[in-house]
Amino acid sequence: MKIAVLPGDGIGPEIVAEAVNVLNALGESFTLEEAPVGGAGYEAQGHPLPDSTLALAKAADAILFGAVGDWKYDSLERALRPEQAILGLRKHLQLFANFRPAILYKELAGASSLKPEIVSGLDILIVRELNGDIYFGQPRGVREAPDGPFAGAREGFDTMRYSVPEVQRIAHVAFQAAQKRSRKLTSVDKSNVLETSQLWRDTMIDVSKQYPDVELSHMYVDNAAMQLVKAPKSFDVVVTGNMFGDILSDQAAMLTGSIGMLPSASLDKANKGLYEPSHGSAPDIAGKGIANPLATILSAAMMLRYSLGKTEQADRIETAVKKVLAQGLRTPDIWEAGTQKVGTREMGAAVVAAL
Amino acid sequence: MKIAVLPGDGIGPEIVAEAVNVLNALGESFTLEEAPVGGAGYEAQGHPLPDSTLALAKAADAILFGAVGDWKYDSLERALRPEQAILGLRKHLQLFANFRPAILYKELAGASSLKPEIVSGLDILIVRELNGDIYFGQPRGVREAPDGPFAGAREGFDTMRYSVPEVQRIAHVAFQAAQKRSRKLTSVDKSNVLETSQLWRDTMIDVSKQYPDVELSHMYVDNAAMQLVKAPKSFDVVVTGNMFGDILSDQAAMLTGSIGMLPSASLDKANKGLYEPSHGSAPDIAGKGIANPLATILSAAMMLRYSLGKTEQADRIETAVKKVLAQGLRTPDIWEAGTQKVGTREMGAAVVAAL
Ligand SMILES: CC(C)[C@H](C(=O)O)[C@@H](O)C(=O)O
Ligand SMILES: CC(C)[C@H](C(=O)O)[C@@H](O)C(=O)O
Repeated sequence: MKIAVLPGDGIGPEIVAEAVNVLNALGESFTLEEAPVGGAGYEAQGHPLPDSTLALAKAADAILFGAVGDWKYDSLERALRPEQAILGLRKHLQLFANFRPAILYKELAGASSLKPEIVSGLDILIVRELNGDIYFGQPRGVREAPDGPFAGAREGFDTMRYSVPEVQRIAHVAFQAAQKRSRKLTSVDKSNVLETSQLWRDTMIDVSKQYPDVELSHMYVDNAAMQLVKAPKSFDVVVTGNMFGDILSDQAAMLTGSIGMLPSASLDKANKGLYEPSHGSAPDIAGKGIANPLATILSAAMMLRYSLGKTEQADRIETAVKKVLAQGLRTPDIWEAGTQKVGTREMGAAVVAAL
Repeated sequence: MKIAVLPGDGIGPEIVAEAVNVLNALGESFTLEEAPVGGAGYEAQGHPLPDSTLALAKAADAILFGAVGDWKYDSLERALRPEQAILGLRKHLQLFANFRPAILYKELAGASSLKPEIVSGLDILIVRELNGDIYFGQPRGVREAPDGPFAGAREGFDTMRYSVPEVQRIAHVAFQAAQKRSRKLTSVDKSNVLETSQLWRDTMIDVSKQYPDVELSHMYVDNAAMQLVKAPKSFDVVVTGNMFGDILSDQAAMLTGSIGMLPSASLDKANKGLYEPSHGSAPDIAGKGIANPLATILSAAMMLRYSLGKTEQADRIETAVKKVLAQGLRTPDIWEAGTQKVGTREMGAAVVAAL
């Protein structure tokens, strides 16, 4: 089995190195092949997603991704900026199903900005559609406004679009995820305003008939943002579009206060996937050896589970991570009084030892 | 001075009645004229925004609005549903500047789901553009997908659009609001993905040159949703588009845990405005006399300040509201042990008495 390893920028290389150590410690025979992406891709080959990197990602069975982005690329034109790599991989590999768990480990309850009784035991799964919506919808651009109250003025425009089969596809993924959990699914849209959302909602209702054991409910995105603050534990599985999912999954992740712990998976229809931490490249702490590698290590576990069919090995990693937390080891982002502060490499080594 | 009073549905009539009592107690000679809107408009004249209601709103100097919506209208076609009234008023009256304060009164700090040290003293002003964006952008609808990977399938689509003068207009409002506060303005967009957002950001930067005393910063919407959870007090004035503003203003409001306290204003270029509580019509508690009228009463205060030029009377109302809170009076939504539970009418009467 071949894994494409794309460390990227900022803390990416450091945290991916630890996840690779953990994978190597499992005693399986993976082929790991590394390639530059994001700012590193731009430096190496003038593009955030070099052709050779894309080819490797296509050829691999799964992709382990670090993080991309650095302020030093802010002045590049958009098409060359690091985050285009991630958009390009999602699009070219048709990674349409994004799984973003927001889990609060009991040892880390204090890290949240919310009151413990509101968040302790939080365990939400956000299923975000990742190939459609206003992220990729054509037409888009800058033009002279063709009509409306500002006709003739320069305007920017983008198109939100979702087709029935596109919504069906993510609906099935979400309903099946809900079947494996509490059988409750909340679909988030803005159907009181948007045509796209109305079609989204109608399609969700339609697909729900194939899953009579799952209870489907609907919520407007503004209300979802409120309920995530007020009563986050009232959610279990949430399914939503690319744009709303971007916002809500980050909000949900931050409810835990320990975003350094949260993995994510982006899958295609054959369960081939890209795995990355939910956090970013944190260029401010890059190279200092203090980044938390656990989200990336847990992303590797998700990879074993979803794309490589190695459930047992995934379990082993997840158990090892819980063990190091129970041992009191903490990188600075999750450290609190009474626990032991460790660096990126020590944390990775502790997980390997705990395996 | 003529005020259009549009109570609407659910708890709307009850809370607006108290705000009207407060206005009448000021000893000013306002003409208050009432008209049905939302579900009430549909019942009375077959449309959520009857022509006569729109005409009254146009003729008035300001509009005091309750809330609209009830589950019983859920099965109506979208154009007839209650919330179309609010969209129609915003559009026809060109109410493009929405002010949504998120303020946590010190007496109510316990009501928040966030830790006291994270939210106590919270005082954010969200300035949301209200006439453009994907809310009103044409074209929109349902069609056969003309292109893309799902060409030929049925799809919903909407258009996000912002023109330079449209962004300039809200930028000036936001910079001027920031000048009256801490001179810090955060513009929220998704310019790493959207063309509309890139034009938004470029225009904000352009307008900022006219306000050298205000410090402008930019934040992606997903990061803003995170920072609102993590460190809400790091924000002062936030300016954003219609769609992102819908989500973030509700999220920010809920951080306080006391959304029953939060007023809002929607202004046109001449400062004529519509004033309404940030919360909804709460049909589940309608008619029970337990709704919190303070958000509506504070909306009346905003009306006096922004549209009617009666700053002193606005101050009087706001002081009276603080007084009743200090007296320990609480409607059920903000009640906690050690305070006195009161109903809608008692709360309104207490504010009148405190004036
Ligand atoms: C980097 C950016 C384009 C991306 C997105 O908006 O999807 C990121 O925020 C994410 O959520 O993975
Ligand atoms: C009722 C709805 C159309 C409206 C909006 O989305 O703007 C509401 O959520 C608001 O924020 O005032």
